[in-house]
Amino acid sequence: MQYKEITSTQNLLVKQIHVLKEKSRERKKTGLFIIEGRRELILATKANYTIKTILFYPDLVSNEDLNSLISSEIERIQISRDVFEKLAYRSSTEGIIAIAEMKQHKLQDLKFPKTNPLILVAEAPEKPGNIGAILRTADAAHVDAVIIANPKGDLYNPNIIRSSVGCVFTNQIAVGETSEIIEFLKDHKISIYSAILQDAVNYHEQDYTQSTAIVVGTEADGLSDPWRKASTQNIKIPMQGEIDSMNVSVAAGILIFEVKRQRGFE
Amino acid sequence: MQYKEITSTQNLLVKQIHVLKEKSRERKKTGLFIIEGRRELILATKANYTIKTILFYPDLVSNEDLNSLISSEIERIQISRDVFEKLAYRSSTEGIIAIAEMKQHKLQDLKFPKTNPLILVAEAPEKPGNIGAILRTADAAHVDAVIIANPKGDLYNPNIIRSSVGCVFTNQIAVGETSEIIEFLKDHKISIYSAILQDAVNYHEQDYTQSTAIVVGTEADGLSDPWRKASTQNIKIPMQGEIDSMNVSVAAGILIFEVKRQRGFE
Repeated sequence: MQYKEITSTQNLLVKQIHVLKEKSRERKKTGLFIIEGRRELILATKANYTIKTILFYPDLVSNEDLNSLISSEIERIQISRDVFEKLAYRSSTEGIIAIAEMKQHKLQDLKFPKTNPLILVAEAPEKPGNIGAILRTADAAHVDAVIIANPKGDLYNPNIIRSSVGCVFTNQIAVGETSEIIEFLKDHKISIYSAILQDAVNYHEQDYTQSTAIVVGTEADGLSDPWRKASTQNIKIPMQGEIDSMNVSVAAGILIFEVKRQRGFE
Repeated sequence: MQYKEITSTQNLLVKQIHVLKEKSRERKKTGLFIIEGRRELILATKANYTIKTILFYPDLVSNEDLNSLISSEIERIQISRDVFEKLAYRSSTEGIIAIAEMKQHKLQDLKFPKTNPLILVAEAPEKPGNIGAILRTADAAHVDAVIIANPKGDLYNPNIIRSSVGCVFTNQIAVGETSEIIEFLKDHKISIYSAILQDAVNYHEQDYTQSTAIVVGTEADGLSDPWRKASTQNIKIPMQGEIDSMNVSVAAGILIFEVKRQRGFE
């Protein structure tokens, strides 16, 4: 079978893919984002993302190979080496670049199949690498949901997808304003444990065996005031060094795995 | 007092500073590295690093200010805006750029003032951001030493200094080959808990109240074979997600803080 082929780096679709990778605004406008790599495509498909178009570089991935990954109904476009190198300049795509539809990540769509859900809330996380690391931790701990409060950008930044090693697709994720998230947690009778120093107990002295939301803020500013007011209990990691500072994804990992430990990793 | 002034971005010292920031090889050859920023300079001075020369941009830092930070015997050179902007292009230096002598980080120089020391060993960590996050965790937990096994580069990469927020200066750090580190730990009767899946117990089921070394490898390859052979007990973090993967600095944080928890954060 002969596929449509793109050989020019000046092609409009190539330019659009480039812009979709670079600009959150463009992703928001179109509702589309870019998936690079085999593993990422498999995870996104498994998570019911709608794939619109696949661009493939035949020296790295065969049609038979693609058949095993995606439905034959999805548009496939063969690309030349020049085009592939323009699009794949920062990451290992394994010859696969997909245009996919973003999800909405609405709070009200979250489902909690288990009793005593464990939720990780991160307010206004900035660095894609930290967001990726947080999503990896959330996947490893099999938390019931990750909620991003007051996001600084969208989840489909290529650096987030890459640094999450695809965990952006495996987690149940919601995005919202802090005020609505607090309301949501209260409506669902989920206790709020905010990582805030004031009036805090040491994190390992708190019981997390009931419904739990662990809430972390930014390294620079911590959590916003509403979290202090809404907190069931503020918690802190004892800091015994010279510098009162910890990477936010490390702090989230320590807190989430203390919950897991108390729950016996059930 | 009038200081020597550099106004040309083509000045040889300016070029050398640039190379010292960029090239591990140049740092190794000269034994020198670059410190940027007030806080970093204070921490390095406190840690007895030898400062050779300070370059300062007078619009951002005054001489009186510098007097409070460093001895008047250290050479000071005033720099122009052009030079400052060339040197400070990636980070907030607060007008301060120092040339300092690297330390040796020898295993035999490590001192353990406490009984039952806690040591964090990271083998061949690659990403500066992960090394920085690990050093921040080590500072926060007040571990007795961080040991880097089979390093991929030196500690004085500006991205490590920056992402460690100066914890590269606050920790006691040694660097060495895996074989000599294992010998060192055994000589000091320090139990080795290697993050290796095979024959591992869950990390939270191991007792760490005696002398403890927590050893983590790379995300891609794990730990090298000698650690498996030398291990007192292999430990693992239970992974319950779809993707068997965790950021190395997050994993190190979870393990180190489990040790701290068991020791009651004493």
